[in-house]
Amino acid sequence: MQLFYGTRSGDKFTLAEDESKHAVKVLRKVEGDVLHAMDGEGNLIEGIISLAHPKRCELAIQQVTPRWGEVPYRLHLAFAPTKNMDRTEWLIEKAIELGVDRFTPLLTEHSERKVLKVDRLDRIARSACKQSLKGTLPKIDELTPFDEFIRSEQTAHRYIGYCGDGTKAQLIQELRRTSEPVCIAIGPEGDFSPREFEEAVAQGFKGITLGDQRLRTETAGLMAVHTAHVAHLLRSEGTN
Amino acid sequence: MQLFYGTRSGDKFTLAEDESKHAVKVLRKVEGDVLHAMDGEGNLIEGIISLAHPKRCELAIQQVTPRWGEVPYRLHLAFAPTKNMDRTEWLIEKAIELGVDRFTPLLTEHSERKVLKVDRLDRIARSACKQSLKGTLPKIDELTPFDEFIRSEQTAHRYIGYCGDGTKAQLIQELRRTSEPVCIAIGPEGDFSPREFEEAVAQGFKGITLGDQRLRTETAGLMAVHTAHVAHLLRSEGTN
Repeated sequence: MQLFYGTRSGDKFTLAEDESKHAVKVLRKVEGDVLHAMDGEGNLIEGIISLAHPKRCELAIQQVTPRWGEVPYRLHLAFAPTKNMDRTEWLIEKAIELGVDRFTPLLTEHSERKVLKVDRLDRIARSACKQSLKGTLPKIDELTPFDEFIRSEQTAHRYIGYCGDGTKAQLIQELRRTSEPVCIAIGPEGDFSPREFEEAVAQGFKGITLGDQRLRTETAGLMAVHTAHVAHLLRSEGTN
Repeated sequence: MQLFYGTRSGDKFTLAEDESKHAVKVLRKVEGDVLHAMDGEGNLIEGIISLAHPKRCELAIQQVTPRWGEVPYRLHLAFAPTKNMDRTEWLIEKAIELGVDRFTPLLTEHSERKVLKVDRLDRIARSACKQSLKGTLPKIDELTPFDEFIRSEQTAHRYIGYCGDGTKAQLIQELRRTSEPVCIAIGPEGDFSPREFEEAVAQGFKGITLGDQRLRTETAGLMAVHTAHVAHLLRSEGTN
């Protein structure tokens, strides 16, 4: 299914400018053609082109499917973006395929990346939602200082991955026991600092491990997401 | 830890040609310097440079740590390489971080990629082993026709991922119940054909699913590997 992205307003749907160009100029769609589109807020739209303008293609909405492709668990992933942006973009794409509600890029003591263009990540997120048939576009926050993040984060269950010393639980064992929203923080290549870990714990985060393997930061991020996915599968089959 | 790759012969270790160049020309290592190296067969080597030749750097072995970084489960991943080689290379790298013994690239009915250069994948595998501190280099087979693969594959537990109709088990539920070697086959973007799936089942493969999400082929491959990893963690904690 070819999907377009845009904004809904009553029974009218307007494709984003680049999407309008793609539909009208590249695919040569004309008035009267049926298109499928998403608003990023969970709705799948079926509509008929009422205005085939190459900068602002409009649809008359025929049908709306709410909560389309909704992921059956709530997950907020906080992570320290890698120096190599390809690896961060990859994490965003893959995490959305599996299912994440919100991303918070973190600025940590050992972060190699201290600036981040969120616009580009948003484009990747939009494309990943289309590809994996997910109606809800995850929110991607601006780069957030770690201390600010741990003070303001209020998700029911908050976890922090850490490779250093300290009390840590297996993430899979934690997640299989709850269906409430979870937030997982994954550090940079050099890990969180001991101070960061201790302060997160003081703020109600629980230390976790993903196993004994040495993982790159983007791999650890994705495996945390997949652990939430597997935990959901285990809970659904009542084997918890 | 800086790691070099090469071949062991008795108490002598010879770095590969490109590794010799890197050690001697780039890092300016000289006779008497201590190096750490791996032979790809599970051994971590500590040795003293006895010949600092830029094409054939030799070490006098001081210490051998066998089964270094060994992954505590046996996993053979068969997968249909993607048209875009970056995605296949990414799968190899990430799967090795998590732990895989052997890869079989498959040529399937719906495969978009019908030729494959295994040399380049070997280089990526070598680099991933160093990065993730794994002493054993996974074997990467040549591109193998699917029918040949299902007839010859003899791993104790054999699974095939499939999105079409048919009886399928949840992979996590299967893997948490066995610590014996497993082989998992993941199809191309267009999935295995119904005929391929049926023939694999007739050859003793069990149909499995990774959940309801629509995943790209390389994501599905990696998630199969991580499922084996999570299953091991669940078994280790005696919660099976």
